[in-house]
Amino acid sequence: MPQDSYLVGLIGSGIGPSLSPALHEREADRQGLRYLYRLIDLDTLGAAPAAVGDLVRAARDLGFDGLNITHPCKQLVVEHLDELSPQAEALGAVNTVVFDGGRAVGHNTDVTGFAASFARGLPDAPLERVVQLGAGGAGAAVAHAGLTLGAGRVTVVDALADRAAGLADSLNRHFGAGRAAAATPDLLPSLLARADGVVHATPTGMAAHPGLPFPAELLRPGLWVAEVVYRPLETELLRTARALGCATLDGGGMAVFQAADAFRLFTGREPDSARMLADIAELAGAAGARN
Amino acid sequence: MPQDSYLVGLIGSGIGPSLSPALHEREADRQGLRYLYRLIDLDTLGAAPAAVGDLVRAARDLGFDGLNITHPCKQLVVEHLDELSPQAEALGAVNTVVFDGGRAVGHNTDVTGFAASFARGLPDAPLERVVQLGAGGAGAAVAHAGLTLGAGRVTVVDALADRAAGLADSLNRHFGAGRAAAATPDLLPSLLARADGVVHATPTGMAAHPGLPFPAELLRPGLWVAEVVYRPLETELLRTARALGCATLDGGGMAVFQAADAFRLFTGREPDSARMLADIAELAGAAGARN
Repeated sequence: MPQDSYLVGLIGSGIGPSLSPALHEREADRQGLRYLYRLIDLDTLGAAPAAVGDLVRAARDLGFDGLNITHPCKQLVVEHLDELSPQAEALGAVNTVVFDGGRAVGHNTDVTGFAASFARGLPDAPLERVVQLGAGGAGAAVAHAGLTLGAGRVTVVDALADRAAGLADSLNRHFGAGRAAAATPDLLPSLLARADGVVHATPTGMAAHPGLPFPAELLRPGLWVAEVVYRPLETELLRTARALGCATLDGGGMAVFQAADAFRLFTGREPDSARMLADIAELAGAAGARN
Repeated sequence: MPQDSYLVGLIGSGIGPSLSPALHEREADRQGLRYLYRLIDLDTLGAAPAAVGDLVRAARDLGFDGLNITHPCKQLVVEHLDELSPQAEALGAVNTVVFDGGRAVGHNTDVTGFAASFARGLPDAPLERVVQLGAGGAGAAVAHAGLTLGAGRVTVVDALADRAAGLADSLNRHFGAGRAAAATPDLLPSLLARADGVVHATPTGMAAHPGLPFPAELLRPGLWVAEVVYRPLETELLRTARALGCATLDGGGMAVFQAADAFRLFTGREPDSARMLADIAELAGAAGARN
């Protein structure tokens, strides 16, 4: 009998507002699967991030099929897994764990999800010179995705110079010397003047962090703009860029494709990403309206 | 927003063939609830029965709404709970745990389930003198249920004389002196000759233990017969008793009502026991056909 019921969850901190349960369960419902997505919030449990190892083992024992992992556990979880996908290995970070018999296998669908979203939303974008803002966890994932997609050179810009340098070093080790560089925000005017496009991977533009991540005058027609923030779907950065006629990619695509990739890993079934994109437009819109 | 998704499970040993997932999930589906019932089998995990405490705490942390508990953990689990229902307290055994916030509350729906099944199936049965075969875990639960229903005196018969005496002592402490007695099987002829009815709570009659629990000639018209075994639904004991014209109660009712009572505790919603009785007839029939 083919498996037709699935139990998955998300481990992280402050995850109450996550759209992942709705994204996964709606798609599962359309496929006629019994599917339950539970939030396992460290804050609610009063648990330290280091508890992620025990929680992963407990989930395996209690019959979970897999887990998503988010802040602050994506790196901490790695040592507790039996095997890593190539992307997770390269990044040293895992956002998806699949239980395969007694084994826990780590994947990173932030990487594959951003790559899928970009390939779908900006298929013809030139990739010779890419500027990326943000060298945190999301930044590391999308920089990996960008270089996987064939970006010539990604310059990682972060106010924390060490963090940017560390990510650039890691990217160069993995993809080859010269594929990545680090810079501080004061260099953005010259970097963006010569760039094909910019990837934004900081929290700026979320409801709690409104505004633009850099001055609007650094945007220009011809520069493509890819956003990681997806609540709201239309950030001030995207609105400004669209007004200038820039090709843009909102953060909903990455949110959907990371979920779709995780769904595929959990179930072995092909999700319908078009329907999931319609879901997130509705869900993120509703969430935005509440903010 | 009312809760509409539920995660529950069953902890025990060798529980692969359990009908509980199907009984619960079918009723939940009819009520439009997202409901997942997972089997947590100690044998599969290679875990000792004493692991039940860790498993219960892990289930609470991972977002389970509740658990059923079966052999060999019904008594072991008690010390790990925060509160007990009166039936669970009296019996010292728990088959249902409900997580209420961070608290784990133990119930015993074997007791309430047998009582409900008996009240429904044999509503007019005289209860002055009841003979019960079997003083194990199921026997303890149904003896409690019988005395709760108002049985005048229950005589517990078990080949293990100490076990029968221990249960009778416990029943007398709880329900009052003289309500219970213990006996060995050699006394069955005289006991049954004077009894109103007999409750059968040993494994005899299951596919792995075919046959009658006592000689057929001890049955007589006018004696009611209540069975705990439900796979198959019609045991040799019930078939023989029905042929004599005895009023009978099969084990399906107890199986359904213990599940229905657990479902109500987990969800706060009223299960439709008539539909669940139809389910178990189908499920136990199908299971019997495979044996």
